[in-house]
Amino acid sequence: MDFEAEFGAQLEALKAEGNYRIFADLERDCASFPRVRNHGEGPAEVTVWCSNDYLGMGRHPKVVEAMAETSRACGTGAGGTRNISGNAHHHVMLERELADLHGKEDALLFSSGYVSNWATLSCLGARLPGAVIFSDSLNHSSMIEGIRHSRADKVIWRHNDPEDLDRKLAAVGPDRSKIVAFESVYSMDGDIAPIAEICEVARKHGALTYLDEVHGVGMYGPRGAGVAERDGVMDRVDIIEGTLGKAFGCFGGYVSGSRAMCDFIRSFASGFIFTTALPPAVAAAARVSVQHLKQSETERVRQRRQVARLRAGLEANGIPHLDNPSHIIPVMIGDPVKCRMIADILMTDWGVYVQPINYPTVPKGTERLRFTPGPFHSDADIDHLVSALNSLWSRCALSRQVA
Amino acid sequence: MDFEAEFGAQLEALKAEGNYRIFADLERDCASFPRVRNHGEGPAEVTVWCSNDYLGMGRHPKVVEAMAETSRACGTGAGGTRNISGNAHHHVMLERELADLHGKEDALLFSSGYVSNWATLSCLGARLPGAVIFSDSLNHSSMIEGIRHSRADKVIWRHNDPEDLDRKLAAVGPDRSKIVAFESVYSMDGDIAPIAEICEVARKHGALTYLDEVHGVGMYGPRGAGVAERDGVMDRVDIIEGTLGKAFGCFGGYVSGSRAMCDFIRSFASGFIFTTALPPAVAAAARVSVQHLKQSETERVRQRRQVARLRAGLEANGIPHLDNPSHIIPVMIGDPVKCRMIADILMTDWGVYVQPINYPTVPKGTERLRFTPGPFHSDADIDHLVSALNSLWSRCALSRQVA
Ligand SMILES: Cc1ncc(COP(=O)(O)O)c(C=O)c1O
Ligand SMILES: Cc1ncc(COP(=O)(O)O)c(C=O)c1O
Repeated sequence: MDFEAEFGAQLEALKAEGNYRIFADLERDCASFPRVRNHGEGPAEVTVWCSNDYLGMGRHPKVVEAMAETSRACGTGAGGTRNISGNAHHHVMLERELADLHGKEDALLFSSGYVSNWATLSCLGARLPGAVIFSDSLNHSSMIEGIRHSRADKVIWRHNDPEDLDRKLAAVGPDRSKIVAFESVYSMDGDIAPIAEICEVARKHGALTYLDEVHGVGMYGPRGAGVAERDGVMDRVDIIEGTLGKAFGCFGGYVSGSRAMCDFIRSFASGFIFTTALPPAVAAAARVSVQHLKQSETERVRQRRQVARLRAGLEANGIPHLDNPSHIIPVMIGDPVKCRMIADILMTDWGVYVQPINYPTVPKGTERLRFTPGPFHSDADIDHLVSALNSLWSRCALSRQVA
Repeated sequence: MDFEAEFGAQLEALKAEGNYRIFADLERDCASFPRVRNHGEGPAEVTVWCSNDYLGMGRHPKVVEAMAETSRACGTGAGGTRNISGNAHHHVMLERELADLHGKEDALLFSSGYVSNWATLSCLGARLPGAVIFSDSLNHSSMIEGIRHSRADKVIWRHNDPEDLDRKLAAVGPDRSKIVAFESVYSMDGDIAPIAEICEVARKHGALTYLDEVHGVGMYGPRGAGVAERDGVMDRVDIIEGTLGKAFGCFGGYVSGSRAMCDFIRSFASGFIFTTALPPAVAAAARVSVQHLKQSETERVRQRRQVARLRAGLEANGIPHLDNPSHIIPVMIGDPVKCRMIADILMTDWGVYVQPINYPTVPKGTERLRFTPGPFHSDADIDHLVSALNSLWSRCALSRQVA
């Protein structure tokens, strides 16, 4: 087998369909974010329009200080797995904070949101008797891979459709362990799940509910616990999964739920057990961020205002974008080559950095630009972006949306 | 299904066999490591004897400063996946540094060593035509899970036995993509693979070699590139995988190899694509650590001296331990309950923290204490540990080893 040739051929195929990815090479600066230094092609400074540090917490002075100070005090790494010397008091305190955030008995930290989904779903699916996992058709790759890994039976239900879920749950016998896995905010379309209805249906069939709030935590609910908090249904969800890497501005993931559930995953999930614990300094920073967003609405209020302003600007100019109730503004392009071309022009001519989103992140034919305005984008930034898009739409004869 | 009851029952079974895990609750302090604050039961200060921060790089002033300063400059999180706004210049520079370390064309960062193994092996196994993965029988869980996930055919060969590998490779036709996956230092027994022989056999059968150097990097070879460097065979290994979380004292994992291989994994591996990038500050700290250990032998020399001293102390007192050529000193107990009891006494009466190692980390019946002396353990620390073990061996009438 000529491995090099095989790697090359598969990469060529990706390039031919326009789906080969080129990473921007950026350097964030606390003082100027979302303005960042660009080490790649284009202007030396660009404005980031597609960050998942939705509220700019990654530059919040308290959060930054917690990371800097804790690394000075405790060092840079945990030095071991949670079981073998790596369990730091900072992990323990963060887990308590997260359990409190979601009103649950306990929480469990993982290396990332990806690993929390993958490890938890694969452990539940593999160890619960006769497990069947009911997975929303648009679930994130980390959940899909976790389910695949578990080798449990999998049933896909229609996206955000409790009735379809109901029918599918009813078709499986009551002796099986049923798990319903879904997200709150779907990050590519920005639509939001009917959590109450889904939980109602799940309860009717005795199913465990597993909710990915990765794009909800920090952003929704009076204490930033997510959409389930906003909707007043946090207690109806058995397992809430979240990330510390998006609105909380740090790194890492977690699940929260009953004490027995967390202890079960802690005790049996390979992806939790066999890996170095998060740096204590990262845990400390994340805890400060969670605590801050529990008490402060300032960032969320300002962020919503900027989202509304960008939407209004797009509407006024007929720039087609998905209508949704979240903080994510997808501008649909529908072609990977065109999508990259538009993104390149935005970067080069306008200093606007928005990554073209292509397969496998979204289905082929639904390529898009995905904008996430934050509290640190000024009104002038937004007006500049709208002008840029407007000029591009004229220059490239792209179709407009009629209001 | 009563999920709580099911979780509880499986946990009870674990408790009944003595394999339920209780984490120590510790707080590292740069100024005093390996002396750490103990928030759990036992003395308020204990000495860590089981850290995988083998060289104490997690407290090295240059490494700590890089993390603190970079978090002040760039913030706490990357804010996105590598593709979507999360690619920081610090990642790019670290990847270059790691490629240079291993003398390879390129390197690719992951959230952890676990994820690098899992994502890379599952991607290779799933995408290479007719893939068969030949896995050493003692491979780490992260590799096993990656192979399982790929659904490729798997052939297990006898631990560190190139002849068995040869026979098994010969039994599979030449049209299949063969991948040989193994480790350099096996972390629980501390034995070391015959890398040259294994690569020779693999080459004979046209197989790709994948080497986990997680416990080798930083520790072996003149520039700390691992056992393959020490043995002068780095160029014969196609893919070298490592962690930034052990001897480098930070967090994260990577693979290094050909440009096309790295680009292939970058482009196709779900576990690389769909997850937030490492914090730039972690990448910056890891880079400083790698650079330091490329140039400095001080830490390795001092560490080897302390390992030899502890071994000599154990031998002089007939404390049974596995003989091996590495930095890992396993003291075999062979029973999970006894193992925990001894560890508890060491902690409470002697201020010695060594985690009892039990199933699933090691096979049942091979429970052990695993000591990893580092450059910051003083001679007095080692003598204290040997006295503690000696007294325990007398008190508990444990069997001695005749020299
Ligand atoms: C819905 C969803 N779940 C999980 C993840 C993974 O979280 P993390 O980035 O912390 O790995 C992501 C994105 O990265 C996501 O969009
Ligand atoms: C052999 C081996 N490979 C991989 C890993 C995972 O590396 P990390 O801790 O960076 O996830 C470990 C230990 O954790 C290990 O012992």
